[in-house]
Amino acid sequence: MQDQAAAEASHKDMANAIRALAMDAVQKAESGHPGMPMGMADVATVLFTRFLKYDASHPEWPDRDRFVLSAGHGSMLIYALLYLTGYPEMDIEEIKNFRQLGARTAGHPEYGHAPGIETTTGPLGQGIGNAVGMALAERLLSQRYGSDIVNHHTYCLAGDGCLMEGISQEAISLAGHYKLGRLIVLFDDNQISIDGPTSLTISDDQLERFRASNWHTAAVDGHDPEAIALAIENAKAVTDRPSIIACRTVIGYGAPKKAGTASTHGSPLGAEEIAGAREKLGWSYPPFVVPEGILKSWRAAGARHRSDFETWIEAAGRLDASSRARLTDPVDEEVRQGIQRAIAAIKIDFAAEGAKLATRQSSQKVLEKLLPVVPGLIGGSADLTGSVGTLTKQHGIIKPDDFAGNYIHYGVREHGMAAAMNGLALHGGIVPYGGTFLVFSDYCRPSIRLSALMGQRVVYVMTHDSIGLGEDGPTHQPVEQLAALRAIPGLYVMRPADSVECAECWEIALLASDTPTILTLTRQGLPVLRNAPTDENLSAKGAYVLLEPEGGRDVTLLATGSEVTMALDAAKMLQGEGIKAAVVSMPCWELFEAQDESYRDASSARHPGSGSEAAVEFGWQKWLGPKGAFIGMRGFGASAPAQELYKHFGITPEAAAAAARDLIVRK
Amino acid sequence: MQDQAAAEASHKDMANAIRALAMDAVQKAESGHPGMPMGMADVATVLFTRFLKYDASHPEWPDRDRFVLSAGHGSMLIYALLYLTGYPEMDIEEIKNFRQLGARTAGHPEYGHAPGIETTTGPLGQGIGNAVGMALAERLLSQRYGSDIVNHHTYCLAGDGCLMEGISQEAISLAGHYKLGRLIVLFDDNQISIDGPTSLTISDDQLERFRASNWHTAAVDGHDPEAIALAIENAKAVTDRPSIIACRTVIGYGAPKKAGTASTHGSPLGAEEIAGAREKLGWSYPPFVVPEGILKSWRAAGARHRSDFETWIEAAGRLDASSRARLTDPVDEEVRQGIQRAIAAIKIDFAAEGAKLATRQSSQKVLEKLLPVVPGLIGGSADLTGSVGTLTKQHGIIKPDDFAGNYIHYGVREHGMAAAMNGLALHGGIVPYGGTFLVFSDYCRPSIRLSALMGQRVVYVMTHDSIGLGEDGPTHQPVEQLAALRAIPGLYVMRPADSVECAECWEIALLASDTPTILTLTRQGLPVLRNAPTDENLSAKGAYVLLEPEGGRDVTLLATGSEVTMALDAAKMLQGEGIKAAVVSMPCWELFEAQDESYRDASSARHPGSGSEAAVEFGWQKWLGPKGAFIGMRGFGASAPAQELYKHFGITPEAAAAAARDLIVRK
Repeated sequence: MQDQAAAEASHKDMANAIRALAMDAVQKAESGHPGMPMGMADVATVLFTRFLKYDASHPEWPDRDRFVLSAGHGSMLIYALLYLTGYPEMDIEEIKNFRQLGARTAGHPEYGHAPGIETTTGPLGQGIGNAVGMALAERLLSQRYGSDIVNHHTYCLAGDGCLMEGISQEAISLAGHYKLGRLIVLFDDNQISIDGPTSLTISDDQLERFRASNWHTAAVDGHDPEAIALAIENAKAVTDRPSIIACRTVIGYGAPKKAGTASTHGSPLGAEEIAGAREKLGWSYPPFVVPEGILKSWRAAGARHRSDFETWIEAAGRLDASSRARLTDPVDEEVRQGIQRAIAAIKIDFAAEGAKLATRQSSQKVLEKLLPVVPGLIGGSADLTGSVGTLTKQHGIIKPDDFAGNYIHYGVREHGMAAAMNGLALHGGIVPYGGTFLVFSDYCRPSIRLSALMGQRVVYVMTHDSIGLGEDGPTHQPVEQLAALRAIPGLYVMRPADSVECAECWEIALLASDTPTILTLTRQGLPVLRNAPTDENLSAKGAYVLLEPEGGRDVTLLATGSEVTMALDAAKMLQGEGIKAAVVSMPCWELFEAQDESYRDASSARHPGSGSEAAVEFGWQKWLGPKGAFIGMRGFGASAPAQELYKHFGITPEAAAAAARDLIVRK
Repeated sequence: MQDQAAAEASHKDMANAIRALAMDAVQKAESGHPGMPMGMADVATVLFTRFLKYDASHPEWPDRDRFVLSAGHGSMLIYALLYLTGYPEMDIEEIKNFRQLGARTAGHPEYGHAPGIETTTGPLGQGIGNAVGMALAERLLSQRYGSDIVNHHTYCLAGDGCLMEGISQEAISLAGHYKLGRLIVLFDDNQISIDGPTSLTISDDQLERFRASNWHTAAVDGHDPEAIALAIENAKAVTDRPSIIACRTVIGYGAPKKAGTASTHGSPLGAEEIAGAREKLGWSYPPFVVPEGILKSWRAAGARHRSDFETWIEAAGRLDASSRARLTDPVDEEVRQGIQRAIAAIKIDFAAEGAKLATRQSSQKVLEKLLPVVPGLIGGSADLTGSVGTLTKQHGIIKPDDFAGNYIHYGVREHGMAAAMNGLALHGGIVPYGGTFLVFSDYCRPSIRLSALMGQRVVYVMTHDSIGLGEDGPTHQPVEQLAALRAIPGLYVMRPADSVECAECWEIALLASDTPTILTLTRQGLPVLRNAPTDENLSAKGAYVLLEPEGGRDVTLLATGSEVTMALDAAKMLQGEGIKAAVVSMPCWELFEAQDESYRDASSARHPGSGSEAAVEFGWQKWLGPKGAFIGMRGFGASAPAQELYKHFGITPEAAAAAARDLIVRK
């Protein structure tokens, strides 16, 4: 049901306010995208004045409807809406400062810049994936909390570009499978892309494609407010399928000469065209001025769910404090302590059992202990469940009609999985993790980057982390992925050396409230190296001395993951020759970098040093210097049993020992 | 029309030969994927004995039908087919050595390991993208050479996993748009993925989805040879649309207990199950033995197009030598000389004009000169044509019914574009290049990796290569992409400093017959630094001294791309203070690494040195040492005008000069 129109100003005036702000801000900034906001102003006005459940004064209301601007280049649309409806921190000065240094109004919507921006968008198709995650989160939490606490819709505005990106297929296929009836995509069907009319590049029947994925579809005139409203009402009434409404719009609507053309997409309209648009739209006000009556109507729209908000607050007040807190922060103090206790216990168990385990197996055992203490933990994998160890006996499977479980079969959709995990995390209440092979981090890299840019606690479980994968060969053996991931700012890339480190890395990942983590894990078994685990999380320093020879060092052997065992073996060989080698395990470079220089110098990276990692050397010079020895890969891998590959590529204790001897001679 | 059955052995026996070889080889290797080859054996037998145009003795026949095994994990299918039909270099010993070090029979099909392997597959969905490229290449070359020279089909075998990957949507949408009627996808519709039945994860109507993208579709029993044959005949008859045939198969067909289950997908069946399969299939022969009669029939199938091949040779004999050569190698000696002349000329022009140009603009000017001398050059962009400068006045647009042009509007499909470019290059006769923003290299990274792994001459034109992009903000500003791409083995990552270097980089890219290149180019204008260009391609050494101070160096300033100008400005400042700074431009690290040590030491990287690049430091320590100064980014960018961003992030001549002073003090 649509809300009573709260406004006295006409729909046309209200929509034109968006158009005017968009064209004026882009003009002043001398860059930006006026076409989409002008084209979708009618749809957005209908949504924000009649349907979207939000209270501009309480943007953090957990049960608000989510609005995702997947076509993020049209950022002025959301900025205009936030300003008009009266969100905090979005005054007219911000609009005037569009795209300027330090403004909340960045070129594309940046999560965290202002309340009401639900996710960072711009890289096309990501927003649809986020929206699927948010809609999933809503179902999961509604099942847990009840519909008086969690009961909202997720709206996503997407353009042709979003729908052409492959990630959109993964997202819509996933959403259709899970019957996410509260997800409604508003497709800006303007038939224009940057190169020109979409007919240049695409002949798809988009709605047929969505229907093939179990979606409800509709097509409307995107400039007819009543038709739009009816379509949204109908979409809301379809509860067993997600909905897409193709809104046939004119890009740059109102621009007298440029409307309907690619030239309105990504450049200022120019003074003359803007003057013409003002005339054509009947908008006679100066730049950045929204007359009081129109603004008042918008503000009323922004406040029209105040009583719903208050009712919700009352309902939430009946929850216990901990449940209420976890609705937004899934790792509150109690959960945090539970994690710490569980990790401490399993570290002792791992050490006591001393079993040789692949870290993917250790990770599975850790998860089994974590699940009972982290109710918000939602796992999954991209169709490699058995291989990556993401499913435990503690899990229940999430199914299309049953959201009580905590494990998602994401299918062969790494990119869709990662974008959905961003949405799950952004929604609040959930800590998502998902697994695939490390080499396929490439398939979801754009979403991993956004996890980092947005500072979201998303845990990527990426196994088969080297040539140790063996026979599947070079297409499946990561050699450059560790380096490529370490290059992303704001991301923890962890490569634990044994079960104990694996447990420690999980602890770090779950407690890192604003940093995503990649856990890279082995296929092959590794001995327990930390036989006497400390209470302290040694991995939290990023690197630490695992073996310190008596009487000073001749050489330091740095290593990560499976190659730490090799470094220890090499140190033993060297010891037999009277060479004193220390071994430093480096599970997380980023955390090590964050230590103070005295720790870094004293604990680990003293020269001469060698590095061992079954991956390319790229980036290792930071720790080794340009002449430092490196034992690792020089190029792509090969297909053969893992042990043979290690020999073939010269990644052996013997090679590590020989390199150390050379270093000492050269010193 | 299907060919006359050349065989005397029954279809069943011939298909069972594939099944037996697959299950035996996987069993012996103790790893691998028997399920798909056993399931698709009937379809493959029909294709290779009745339809596929090939001559096993002449695998390099340019007009052969292409067969792409997109579901690359089923590699034993293609190995069995190549052995059975009598391809060179694929004897029974290779089959027995499946997945062993040095064997041609790698875990996944590796391009270059044996004739008949048209592309490296395994990362799902890539093969479909390659096949679209190959089918496009066929149309392009057929238009140029005539149908007596180029007139073939492209067949692609894809599984559920391929179709779930987002890249498949980009590929099928592109193929449907271009009406690639000679592309036929055989979908292994076994309804099983690794996690279990596909119903766990997907509810799509795949064929409806393909129809939405303008495909002809059909569904058949994948174990009924006549039904399969009829469907392929019908698909061949549909010439204005690509075709997909959903072949309903039983994964692991023949395995008595495991058939139809996920357990046949990726593990050996085990001795008992194999014995049962032999009985059930009526295949009583020992492992790796194919009875002579059956082998003879297979060999006859492999030779049944001999006369077509000979007819083709005759027709090709009427071509001039150069055209004939370029059908496979688009850069023959004449083209090579043309490139060199064009580049030499434009270097002189650039220097003489001295115009400040963004390297994306320089690249466009270079392309304009290259197109007339490289007939096989086929350009395009992922809907950023105007921004990335990939289209020139010399181009004609390739359209669905007109393949005379040489420019493809790929649409917003970076991944599909890259995979199609791999297919265009693999086909022979074409040098593909395609453009997008550098930050979106992440969207096509899996295909870039395969360009490198396969050693294909694919040129990626990636512009807006730093915060110099400006207002679009951090989602669009690459900071880690240079490092992430440099980490990929076998790939040239080039960042020219001015127009002259840009021309040199294009020359290197086009002459690098077995290496892909990423050209990273600026949005912003750069002055000409090489005012007196040499005949020698200085960029070909990867790095070179651009400014050598008189009387020895105090410090060396290394830089790439737009930051070379900054380094020169810093050197000038330092000169005023009596500090002698050399400036080294490093357009391509990989080429510099390939120089001998004396060149590297003498020409450039002498300590103390600083590095300047508007990107993260990751990887720079190789040239600078761990204590070397770096002027660049520490994290993600921001939204603001480019010049302000450079100041904000401290990437200025002043900062570079200050860092140099510090280095000298610390020395």
